[in-house]
Amino acid sequence: MRSPILDYLDDVLERTDDFDAGAVADYIPELAAADPNRVAVALCTVNGTVYASGDVGHEFSIQSMSKPFAYALAVEDLGLQTVLSHIGVEPSGEAFNELSLDPESGKPRNPMINAGAIATHALLTGDGDTATERMIDLFSRLTERSIDIDEAVANSEMETGARNMGLAYLLHSSGAMATDPRVAVEGYIRQCAASVTVHDLALMAATLANAGVQPNTGERIFCRQTTKHVLSVMASCGMYDAAGDWLSAVGIPAKSGVAGGIIGILPGQVGVAVFSPPLDAHGNSARGVEMMHRLSDDLGLHLMDAGRPARSSLRETRVADVEGEPATIYVLQGDMVLSSIESLTREIVENPPKTELVIFDMSRVDEVLPVARRTASEMATKLLDEGYCIVLVDPENTVTDFQDSQGRNVQWWSSERLEQGIGA
Amino acid sequence: MRSPILDYLDDVLERTDDFDAGAVADYIPELAAADPNRVAVALCTVNGTVYASGDVGHEFSIQSMSKPFAYALAVEDLGLQTVLSHIGVEPSGEAFNELSLDPESGKPRNPMINAGAIATHALLTGDGDTATERMIDLFSRLTERSIDIDEAVANSEMETGARNMGLAYLLHSSGAMATDPRVAVEGYIRQCAASVTVHDLALMAATLANAGVQPNTGERIFCRQTTKHVLSVMASCGMYDAAGDWLSAVGIPAKSGVAGGIIGILPGQVGVAVFSPPLDAHGNSARGVEMMHRLSDDLGLHLMDAGRPARSSLRETRVADVEGEPATIYVLQGDMVLSSIESLTREIVENPPKTELVIFDMSRVDEVLPVARRTASEMATKLLDEGYCIVLVDPENTVTDFQDSQGRNVQWWSSERLEQGIGA
Amino acid sequence: MRSPILDYLDDVLERTDDFDAGAVADYIPELAAADPNRVAVALCTVNGTVYASGDVGHEFSIQSMSKPFAYALAVEDLGLQTVLSHIGVEPSGEAFNELSLDPESGKPRNPMINAGAIATHALLTGDGDTATERMIDLFSRLTERSIDIDEAVANSEMETGARNMGLAYLLHSSGAMATDPRVAVEGYIRQCAASVTVHDLALMAATLANAGVQPNTGERIFCRQTTKHVLSVMASCGMYDAAGDWLSAVGIPAKSGVAGGIIGILPGQVGVAVFSPPLDAHGNSARGVEMMHRLSDDLGLHLMDAGRPARSSLRETRVADVEGEPATIYVLQGDMVLSSIESLTREIVENPPKTELVIFDMSRVDEVLPVARRTASEMATKLLDEGYCIVLVDPENTVTDFQDSQGRNVQWWSSERLEQGIGA
Amino acid sequence: MRSPILDYLDDVLERTDDFDAGAVADYIPELAAADPNRVAVALCTVNGTVYASGDVGHEFSIQSMSKPFAYALAVEDLGLQTVLSHIGVEPSGEAFNELSLDPESGKPRNPMINAGAIATHALLTGDGDTATERMIDLFSRLTERSIDIDEAVANSEMETGARNMGLAYLLHSSGAMATDPRVAVEGYIRQCAASVTVHDLALMAATLANAGVQPNTGERIFCRQTTKHVLSVMASCGMYDAAGDWLSAVGIPAKSGVAGGIIGILPGQVGVAVFSPPLDAHGNSARGVEMMHRLSDDLGLHLMDAGRPARSSLRETRVADVEGEPATIYVLQGDMVLSSIESLTREIVENPPKTELVIFDMSRVDEVLPVARRTASEMATKLLDEGYCIVLVDPENTVTDFQDSQGRNVQWWSSERLEQGIGA
Repeated sequence: MRSPILDYLDDVLERTDDFDAGAVADYIPELAAADPNRVAVALCTVNGTVYASGDVGHEFSIQSMSKPFAYALAVEDLGLQTVLSHIGVEPSGEAFNELSLDPESGKPRNPMINAGAIATHALLTGDGDTATERMIDLFSRLTERSIDIDEAVANSEMETGARNMGLAYLLHSSGAMATDPRVAVEGYIRQCAASVTVHDLALMAATLANAGVQPNTGERIFCRQTTKHVLSVMASCGMYDAAGDWLSAVGIPAKSGVAGGIIGILPGQVGVAVFSPPLDAHGNSARGVEMMHRLSDDLGLHLMDAGRPARSSLRETRVADVEGEPATIYVLQGDMVLSSIESLTREIVENPPKTELVIFDMSRVDEVLPVARRTASEMATKLLDEGYCIVLVDPENTVTDFQDSQGRNVQWWSSERLEQGIGA
Repeated sequence: MRSPILDYLDDVLERTDDFDAGAVADYIPELAAADPNRVAVALCTVNGTVYASGDVGHEFSIQSMSKPFAYALAVEDLGLQTVLSHIGVEPSGEAFNELSLDPESGKPRNPMINAGAIATHALLTGDGDTATERMIDLFSRLTERSIDIDEAVANSEMETGARNMGLAYLLHSSGAMATDPRVAVEGYIRQCAASVTVHDLALMAATLANAGVQPNTGERIFCRQTTKHVLSVMASCGMYDAAGDWLSAVGIPAKSGVAGGIIGILPGQVGVAVFSPPLDAHGNSARGVEMMHRLSDDLGLHLMDAGRPARSSLRETRVADVEGEPATIYVLQGDMVLSSIESLTREIVENPPKTELVIFDMSRVDEVLPVARRTASEMATKLLDEGYCIVLVDPENTVTDFQDSQGRNVQWWSSERLEQGIGA
Repeated sequence: MRSPILDYLDDVLERTDDFDAGAVADYIPELAAADPNRVAVALCTVNGTVYASGDVGHEFSIQSMSKPFAYALAVEDLGLQTVLSHIGVEPSGEAFNELSLDPESGKPRNPMINAGAIATHALLTGDGDTATERMIDLFSRLTERSIDIDEAVANSEMETGARNMGLAYLLHSSGAMATDPRVAVEGYIRQCAASVTVHDLALMAATLANAGVQPNTGERIFCRQTTKHVLSVMASCGMYDAAGDWLSAVGIPAKSGVAGGIIGILPGQVGVAVFSPPLDAHGNSARGVEMMHRLSDDLGLHLMDAGRPARSSLRETRVADVEGEPATIYVLQGDMVLSSIESLTREIVENPPKTELVIFDMSRVDEVLPVARRTASEMATKLLDEGYCIVLVDPENTVTDFQDSQGRNVQWWSSERLEQGIGA
Repeated sequence: MRSPILDYLDDVLERTDDFDAGAVADYIPELAAADPNRVAVALCTVNGTVYASGDVGHEFSIQSMSKPFAYALAVEDLGLQTVLSHIGVEPSGEAFNELSLDPESGKPRNPMINAGAIATHALLTGDGDTATERMIDLFSRLTERSIDIDEAVANSEMETGARNMGLAYLLHSSGAMATDPRVAVEGYIRQCAASVTVHDLALMAATLANAGVQPNTGERIFCRQTTKHVLSVMASCGMYDAAGDWLSAVGIPAKSGVAGGIIGILPGQVGVAVFSPPLDAHGNSARGVEMMHRLSDDLGLHLMDAGRPARSSLRETRVADVEGEPATIYVLQGDMVLSSIESLTREIVENPPKTELVIFDMSRVDEVLPVARRTASEMATKLLDEGYCIVLVDPENTVTDFQDSQGRNVQWWSSERLEQGIGA
């Protein structure tokens, strides 16, 4: 049986079939030769399954979609503060100010424009490996396959890379980039010539959606903080001039490449990738932008989509005899974030337990955010202060660090003990 | 018992207690007279409970925090396209280009800067009521109390409002604003002089977090689309120059006011408000920004925080005899969004049911996004095509519109029938 | 007999007769009603005779051509340094940055743009008289007749002056202008509504060409330094965006008005004025610009036109018996500027006089620049040092301040004595 | 005897002796090694005599002072229109927009900034000779000696020329420069490394002052039109950011070089050159600017200095018997420009000659501008129409092209005939 998600993606292609605006990038011969009718779409949830429709096996160069990954690698290497000292995170605004170097410092405004991406590439000095080798290795780990450079594209771009060369020399001149400009540009062009499919890109995007962990291999490629930062920068600077328009209409961090690809990420949920070579006036894939709009609307990807009100963590409150004593049992579930722990604390404050024994059953809890842990801990302390006996059932040790400083009446039970106790 | 959430807010105040950077706004006498030591913080989840600490009853003028609400009202009144034809949504970028009028069109760059906010106010022509009266009514509905204008602040600002008057005349001159400039500025200044507390602001922010519905009164004040748009504009344009920095570091839509307030929103979860009069160089409350950083970190408010990988909607798959027949029962739960429905479809595609009877138990489902409804519907059709009998248990009518065009074997059961059927 | 100069001006009108580009200013009704076919040209040399052709008696509003005169008056009133502290002298450059207020200081970039002109007007506070009254008085003295304000134009402009009002409020807001914005704009609009003819304008321009002295009345209206400064500012900032283009192609300080007039000045020689209402894209009279190009080419008005190499001041060197003694007589002529005095000193240095008696006949000298006076004086001292006897014939006392500190052999003769002495 | 002009120059050095602001350019080692105490000043009138004081024989690199000469050569080679299609003539304005490339076209704003100067150099493709060879040849012809390149400076600059390389690549990228960027930059750097003295520079400036003719060799190096254009561009763009300030305060076209030189030109009169290595914040020689101010004030160099009102061309009007007939003799003198011919025509119009015979004695006339020739010719025609007989005494054939179309009574006499005729 074919997945209905694939049917949906087919439908996205079909609904944008008569969309023929834009023109294939013509500034380098290899891109100009692209077949304008190729089209593909893919998505990958954070569990790692990729759904793709259209020319799913068609390879094209990653181009600027490599930028967020190179930036993430640089932040992992050097730490955020060091990277920020070289490259800003502000939108470049007006298209006309096209070089987007800070007039005072000569620093590129952000890592999603060419100047910033060249400076980023130049920061990726590893031990032994070149920056390009490191990027290819990164791409391969993200996509679970061996990624190659399209040498024809790289060579073609090298011959026409005067603008990038100009930027690199200016960066070098202002002290914003120490690397030899020719080396930096050549490496950057090769990074951009990595050959990928929408399937690859959806996996790469899903890794960003999954807080930096490749969903299939389980490899932590970027730490959570780095991923969060990279997504923020993509949200404000990823789609060139019309940042506000993109954030309002599509509402997800995204990045396009001049070969016709666009990737987008809904944090915690999904990565998407589209491909269609003809570009609009902003240099983004014209049909790709159209597909992104449809995906955002249909799939509810918009970051500001309030979604359903977050549900309570408090699954149920029961009063039962446990091991012969009357007890109030709070059964918690899901993630304990601020908005869910709030329900619990409110319940307790408003309706204090009427039994001396209070049991928190956390066996269904998935994850506890620090603020929830802290709040729960304080809640417990307050209950102890008022004379209650507290039992925690926490088989996954989500709140292991809870300590009552006065060594009072807190017990740790297993789930089995609770079950048997109730049965008793 | 005091809520530990209040304890947490106390702690935020305490931890920023020695933060004494910034200076009280001095451009109008009334603001200059503010007590720099006043400080408060509040939060309100989408269920409407407000937690506040510090000078919670202290009133101050709402100032620029009124902008997103006025903008939302204008979008509700006139529709997004009309409003966009008057006011852009792009970050104003460079601080120096401070007027932020589009050089070609004279249109304000966005509604979060003064020029755009004056133009927004001027769009709020109602039947009989002035724009200011409408705003005061709006504030009152948002805060569940009668909001007043601080006339001393309004008058003081009127005397020193030359810059706003200059902007208004330029807007009028370029055709971007039809209203008499003096009327528009006076109204706008009065809108900004509305007197609020952090408690009020947290409720106002929570309404935006709650997709436009005031969480306590249940009144739909803005439609979901409008709210989504306003939050997007706040995310890219709300905190003046350093949009990229704010989005990266704090990561939520926000707006500050020159009297010392800041509001922030995590869509679907929570609205927060802070207050402290001394301002930093950007004109934002210095300690307020510091508090926002802590709230974001502690409470996991960052939009790009991938959170926990979204869990499957598929709670369990059981095979059981139901009403005497072997059946495969899929028990679904929570919200059916793309990333959750995907688990279900994948399960069915990979492990097709081995019984003719297939039951979808949706009694634990909260909400179904259109794409999930569509995907579920297609899934069902495919199953019917392959000869399965389908039973839907959907007490809350989440998928009521499902229709098999060929009138085939789909049945709708109540939860009770399913329970009894299993028992049988 | 008709002056051939008038014939020439007729010819300028005729040669531009088929020039019908541009459109009459339509932003205020009174200007929009102007007859687009009116045309006139005038010139006035520094001796004060005005030549005019076309609609010479047609009155139109002076508009922005009032700016240099208001600026000159402000500089006379307050001194250059004070005026520079309020208003810059840099070209505004890019048209798009249309407000042309310095981003740091809020100061207008120069007095030839509206913001600067309003600020200039606001500086003209006299004793009792309003700035506008003072300007009307100034225009009347410059034109030798009583100039009136076209009240219809002033009123029409007042109704549509939102942009000027916007600028004035911004100036007031930034502290660049203390005056009440409404008062400043109203006064400025009335200044601009002064009604003039090309005959008037040619006289006004000729006063600037004549170092500030009205050529017919002989009244010194602006001092030489002020005039020099105003002309410099007109040269770099007078013709809006395309300053470099104007300076290259036409090459004289100029200023246009939106009613269709343009004035231009060749310092020391001539003032010109043209009139034709239809404007080009820069807001300058289209046919007027064309006429200015022809006048510049035909009349050799270009500032950079090297003209003829400056001639020597040394008319002739004679050796003759004077009062019985052999003498070397240097007959000087014209203006003694650096390039002319240089010839004299070179002659003396290279061919020292062979007679003890050396006579400088300065009876044909018109004016002596300080550096020439100084150089001549040093020359004389050197000759005295070498034992020469010096006679100065200087009936117009051009070098009266010459002093030989050692009281040596310098005599002052009248022209008659020299003539008779030679005859003797 | 020492020339008092030299004494004056000594005095300029002495008066600026305690002026020690600024710092030697340190961006390349060779410039950083310059002796900050070296100082020199020179001037050269249009007759070609150079006066110089201070370290007159000290050689330094010409740097940006080479720009106007390269630009003039390009205009001579290709014509003004072609050059304008590559490089603009507008001031670059704001210092911060330091690249000064037109955002739309990528064209450099003007030839006096580096981008424009590199593009200019790249236009100088000759037959066989490189652009640099052509520039060295040009410098040699301008200075009457063989100019060399300071190879140490060139090499040092080549190593640090990243910014120029960046500009050149951007120019190449935008299509504004066809030449290989590396070739263009290397050539440009060598052009700038030409080694000159203030004596050389004064001669170079004097050639521009002398309408393009080297005053000593008499070689026409640039045509009059080219020279006029180059001086215009120097006036508006030569001294970087503060164009308006320079034009107002010093008032002559000028260009500085980073090695510490500045040249300035008063068209038709004089070229000046100063040298002192420490630079001010604008990158101009600090003491050099100070010296230029003094030279401008002392020597009356300011373009807007109205000078003496231009004197009449009409030396005298005599009525005398000539060859036995009563005649009115107009004795003309000097240059016949508009402002002088006007006096003559006015005299004749207001006081028509009372004798039938009218003689124009032009033997003292130096040069006749076309407009004067045309006006004189029309005057003569009018006189013929009224029955006068005209005699022209024009030994230097200044008005040789005068033709009375009706073959009427115009005679051409020699000066001798007039003298004898009067005597008769």
